[in-house]
Parts: sequence; structure tokens; C-alpha cells
Amino acid sequence: MAEKQLSGAGLRGQVAGKTALSTVGKSGSGLTYRGYDVKDLAENCQFEEVAHLILKGELPDQAQLDAYKKKLKGLRGLPQPLKEVLERIPKDAHPMDVMRTGCSMLGNLETEESFDQQEDATDRLLAAFPSIICYWYRYSHDGVRVETETDDDSIGGHFLHLLRGEKPNALHENVMHVSLILYAEHEFNASTFTARVCASTLSDLHSCITGAIGTLRGPLHGGANEAAMEMIENFKDPDDAEKGMLGMLERKEKIMGFGHAIYRESDPRNAIIKHWSEKLSRDVNGENLYNISVRCEEVMWREKKLFCNADFFHASAYHFMDIPTKLFTPIFVMSRLTGWAAHVFEQRSDNRIIRPSAEYTGPELRKVTPIAERG
Amino acid sequence: MAEKQLSGAGLRGQVAGKTALSTVGKSGSGLTYRGYDVKDLAENCQFEEVAHLILKGELPDQAQLDAYKKKLKGLRGLPQPLKEVLERIPKDAHPMDVMRTGCSMLGNLETEESFDQQEDATDRLLAAFPSIICYWYRYSHDGVRVETETDDDSIGGHFLHLLRGEKPNALHENVMHVSLILYAEHEFNASTFTARVCASTLSDLHSCITGAIGTLRGPLHGGANEAAMEMIENFKDPDDAEKGMLGMLERKEKIMGFGHAIYRESDPRNAIIKHWSEKLSRDVNGENLYNISVRCEEVMWREKKLFCNADFFHASAYHFMDIPTKLFTPIFVMSRLTGWAAHVFEQRSDNRIIRPSAEYTGPELRKVTPIAERG
Repeated sequence: MAEKQLSGAGLRGQVAGKTALSTVGKSGSGLTYRGYDVKDLAENCQFEEVAHLILKGELPDQAQLDAYKKKLKGLRGLPQPLKEVLERIPKDAHPMDVMRTGCSMLGNLETEESFDQQEDATDRLLAAFPSIICYWYRYSHDGVRVETETDDDSIGGHFLHLLRGEKPNALHENVMHVSLILYAEHEFNASTFTARVCASTLSDLHSCITGAIGTLRGPLHGGANEAAMEMIENFKDPDDAEKGMLGMLERKEKIMGFGHAIYRESDPRNAIIKHWSEKLSRDVNGENLYNISVRCEEVMWREKKLFCNADFFHASAYHFMDIPTKLFTPIFVMSRLTGWAAHVFEQRSDNRIIRPSAEYTGPELRKVTPIAERG
Repeated sequence: MAEKQLSGAGLRGQVAGKTALSTVGKSGSGLTYRGYDVKDLAENCQFEEVAHLILKGELPDQAQLDAYKKKLKGLRGLPQPLKEVLERIPKDAHPMDVMRTGCSMLGNLETEESFDQQEDATDRLLAAFPSIICYWYRYSHDGVRVETETDDDSIGGHFLHLLRGEKPNALHENVMHVSLILYAEHEFNASTFTARVCASTLSDLHSCITGAIGTLRGPLHGGANEAAMEMIENFKDPDDAEKGMLGMLERKEKIMGFGHAIYRESDPRNAIIKHWSEKLSRDVNGENLYNISVRCEEVMWREKKLFCNADFFHASAYHFMDIPTKLFTPIFVMSRLTGWAAHVFEQRSDNRIIRPSAEYTGPELRKVTPIAERG
């Protein structure tokens, strides 16, 4: 078989398939979902409209959106055995392990038996993921068994309500829409590629999404907003941030939330979430943390020509909404599920099993020595 | 960024990385693990020796093997919360979903906190996987909570003991060694590639293995031995098998257990497992099923020039050992875990995040229409 050597490790810049779902870093527009600029979507849509766009192909009209939100509302309850599983996961577990296990367990209870169930199975996960993470979090941290069937209007509102025990205000619900829109889809990133490799064996949806969650868990992929939060909350004020960052740069420490594997000049999502972080900061007297974040952005650009990616101002925005830092990446899951699932549908619709080759670097052919003669 | 179009879908024949673990389909020797021909290993080694080879780099001497088996024996017990999770998975669940969930749950209870735990975490899974699948199977099917800490000498013996409630004879334990050796490692197949993509974000071992299990679940990857079993057990005798297969071929039905994505002339694992299937058939008066299998092999070669792959004679071999058909693919997991984990170690040792590009086939840039004007 003819083998072609790829020029870069990690398949960087290598086309591994086709997608109609998004463009990343194409000139003229940084990030588009099915042709719409993410900025346009974040300014004019709710997350459920964007989920509909990504999963079903087009933005809904009002009647379609109402029906879709009603459907999702009806899917927030968790089966009793899943609750009992979540209750057995310790408080100090990694929240992404909770998401991974919750998704996998649901696959045992509500197995996708054939591909014509794929949209329903995805909608179920979309509605259930906030319930899963909040049920575990509230049980393990507060000893409370929360009722996950709320009448909140949106997925983001449902999440904040379960987490905090009261309905969020309009600003917070709106920021959740924006945040979930920004994280929804990003072409062949590692977690999405995992979902597609899994889908290419014609495995079920829960397997694909479980694998994607496990991949997003890695610190080179998800978790940058958590790391950014841990950094900025240690700074007293903007001057302290400047001093601290210069020290980190001098010691060549890794600073999370800046730069991107694909974007070269800026991350189109940054200006959007930065705007909302500022709005939230005024709402909660958080100007100091916001100003610290802005100073970090200035220092990194001045010193390294590195721009903030989507994660950096998400840290302060989530913090202003009282979301515990360790739940930042699970929110990413609630959103990116839409992209993952749509890539699974796409892979299934024109499938060939993804099975690359490897360059062999191991020992030459050798004979097994009888065990008594080894060593 | 320069993008290179790959010639085949599914990355077929494209080198996506380096490995020292195995060669597949190289001339002169069909399948090697770290330089040893799989035939040589299957004839002269126990599975634990091969697991040691794959995971730790070299075949063990007697003292190392004894120590390794002793270590694995000590790791067969399951934590109480994991047992309680397995008890909540229904009898009719897909056994691969059980494996996926069991692995993911264990990741919550015994999280790999740093990469220097990777070998211990793998040994733990190697010892615990037979316990996980049998605990669930016996509880859901027989209402029995089995004690998973047995003193069986081998992983295969432990599995058969838990499954059947009594220690296996020497022949059965030996066949399990051979079977687990044959399935242990196979280069960049789809499940292994999933494990590597997951590992490339520096995620934890349980995430990588959970994702690999979900990928192996797909009918284009694992499960061919189960499908082969379902076919051959419907044939009355060899003549009926010939008639049945000719009918299936005429109707262009998919026949599982034949041909291979990489091997072109034969699967080196077939002759080995076929030999053991024949031996077992004489032990249990299974000559008819064995002869049916042989006739299927003859017909597929004569009619289609398709050879049996590793899966085909595994079906009858497992059946002769009274293993329920639905547990065939979980055995594959118990074995391939060694390859998956070794690939994770390898990816971690020289990592770059696996993030390919895609060819965009979607709509051109378009503006969001206000929702009232859509439809």
C-alpha cells in the first residue's frame, strides 16, 4: 500500500475529511457556523436557535424555535439509576469524569438503537447535561438531591437555576446564550475528531460523545478558562497582574487563555465575551477583576504578540455569575455537544472507517527466547 | 496555512504518526509486536508475558513474570461504588456500554493524577476488566454478586472462572492465553487511533481507554466474531452452510469475519485460532460447528477469494468454551487494552495535539435574518 508521509505531526494542516458545519480562520471572517459569522449569531440569536442551526441545518422560525425549546424542556429529568450513579461519584472527582460517566451511563439506559434516533438522542443529551453536572455537584457538595425538571426558558437558564437554586436574572441568562453559542462548534478540533473516528466504526452516539468529553478533558484542549481563572484570581490589581505576568514570562511558565492553534491574528470570539464580561463586572462590582484581565491582555500582546482566545474573558464572565471554576469545562461540553453530534451525523452520512497508518520505529524481527533463558 | 488533500477517505494509507509497537501486513511476517511474530508469541508465551512485552517493552524473565502475575492478581477486586453502578445497568444493555461505563466510573474512583501512574493504572484495568464485565453479567443475568477476587493464575482463567462459577480446565485457560495474545495490538486501527487522539490533549488514561472502548463497539470494528457466531449457529451442517452462504452472497448480504482493511492475502491470526478451535471441538463434541466453519472458509475463498480474519474461528472457539456470544467483544477489550495503553504512553512521550483540518463544503457567508422574517 502506498504510504504518504505527512509533513507535520498531529496531522496539522492536513485535510482529514469534509464538513459543511464551520470554517475556522478563513480570511474575511474568523469563525462561521453553516455560513453565519459567530458574531452575527451571538448578537442576534439564542443558543437554542444556534443548536437548531448546527443540528438540523437551518435557523428556526419562531414556531420551530418554540417547539424545539418545548421539546428540550421536557427532556430535563434524569432516570433514577443515573441519579444513583451520580450519587456514587465522590465530591473530589474531576467534573469532566462526571460528565463522561453520566453520558456513558445514559447510553446504557437509553441506548441509541438505530441512526434514525440520532437527533432525538442528541436533544436528550442537550437537555440532560446541565441536569447531570448540577445533580452531581449539588449532591456531592451540598448534600441536596435537586429536582432537575425546571421550567426555565433556556438551557443556560436551567443550568444556572439548578446550580444556584434560584432563577437567574435576564443578564445572566443572556450571557449564557452568548457563551454557549461561542463554544458550540469549531471544525476538526481534537475532541470533534475523536467523535468522528468513533462514529466511523458506526458506533452509537453515546460512545462518540463520551469519547469527545474524555478528549476535551485534556489540558491542551478544554480547561484553559479554568487555568486562566486560577491565574487572575491571584492578582491583587492590574499593576500586580502586570508584575506577575512579566515574572511568569521571564520564567517561561505556560500562560493559558492566549494564542490559538489555528487563528493567527485574533480569536473572533474574544471581543464578544470580553464585552459581556465588562457588562457583568459592573453588575457585581467586579471592575477590579475585569481590569486585571484587561491588563493581562495588554501585557501579552505587548510582550509576546499573543491575543486572548475564547477562553480568557470567559474566566471572569463565569466568575461574575458565581459559577465555580471547576464547572467551566462542563459548560463547554453542554455547548460543544451540538458540534460533536452534528459531526457524527455528517460522518455517518458519508462514512469510511478512519484507520490511518503508522511509521514503524521499533525493533527488527526477533525470535522468542524460552523464558528460562531470558534476562 | 498550506493544506494538503489526502488521497483517500478515512486517512487510509496515510502515516499519522510513529510507533514502535507493531507492524501489520509487512512482507515476510504478517503481524509483529515489538519485533516478535504473533505466531511465535502465541506458541510460546502466556498472555501476561505479551502484556509485559507491549506495556513495559520486553518479554519478562521468570521472576518478572511471577511478580507481574502476582501484582495483577492483587488488583481484581472492585470498589463498592463501582459494583453499585454495575448493578444499576440493565440486563439488556450492550456489554460494550457496560465496559465503557465501568472504565469511566473507575476513573472517578481511582483517577490517574499524573503520568507517572500510567503503568499502574493500566495494570489495574487489565486485572479489573474481567471483574467488571462478569460482575455485571452474573448480577444482571443470574442475580448473583460474584466475589471477583479469585486466585486464578491468569487473566483468561480469572475471566472464565467468574463467568462460569468454576475454575476452567487447562485447555480452556490455554486457549484464552492464545486468544488474548492474538487481539492484543494492531497498530493504528480506529479504536487505538481514538486513544491516541484523546491522549494528544494530555487527557487521563481512563478517558483514552473509555473512548477506545466506545470506538471498538462499532460494528465495522469490534463485534465481527459475534456476527460470525450468529451466522454459523444458524447452519445445520456443512452442506447447509454452503447453501446458506451462496444465498447470502447472491443477495449481496454482508458476511462478517472475512477479509481485512490492511491484510491482502491472509490474516496471520486465523491459522492459530483455527487450530485451537479444532482442538476444542474435539473436547466438547463440537465437530459439526467446526466443520461448518471450515466449509464457510472454503466457500468464501472459492467464491470471493476472501480469507478468514482473526474473528471467524474465534466465534466457534469461544462458543466451545460456553462463552455467551454477547461477551465476545468485551474479551477483545480485555486484550486490546494492552495495545491501547501502550499507544497512549507512546503518544505522551512525544506529543503534539492531533488536530487535522477539513475541506469546507457548506454554505457561503450569509447574514442572520431576524426570526420574525424567517421561514
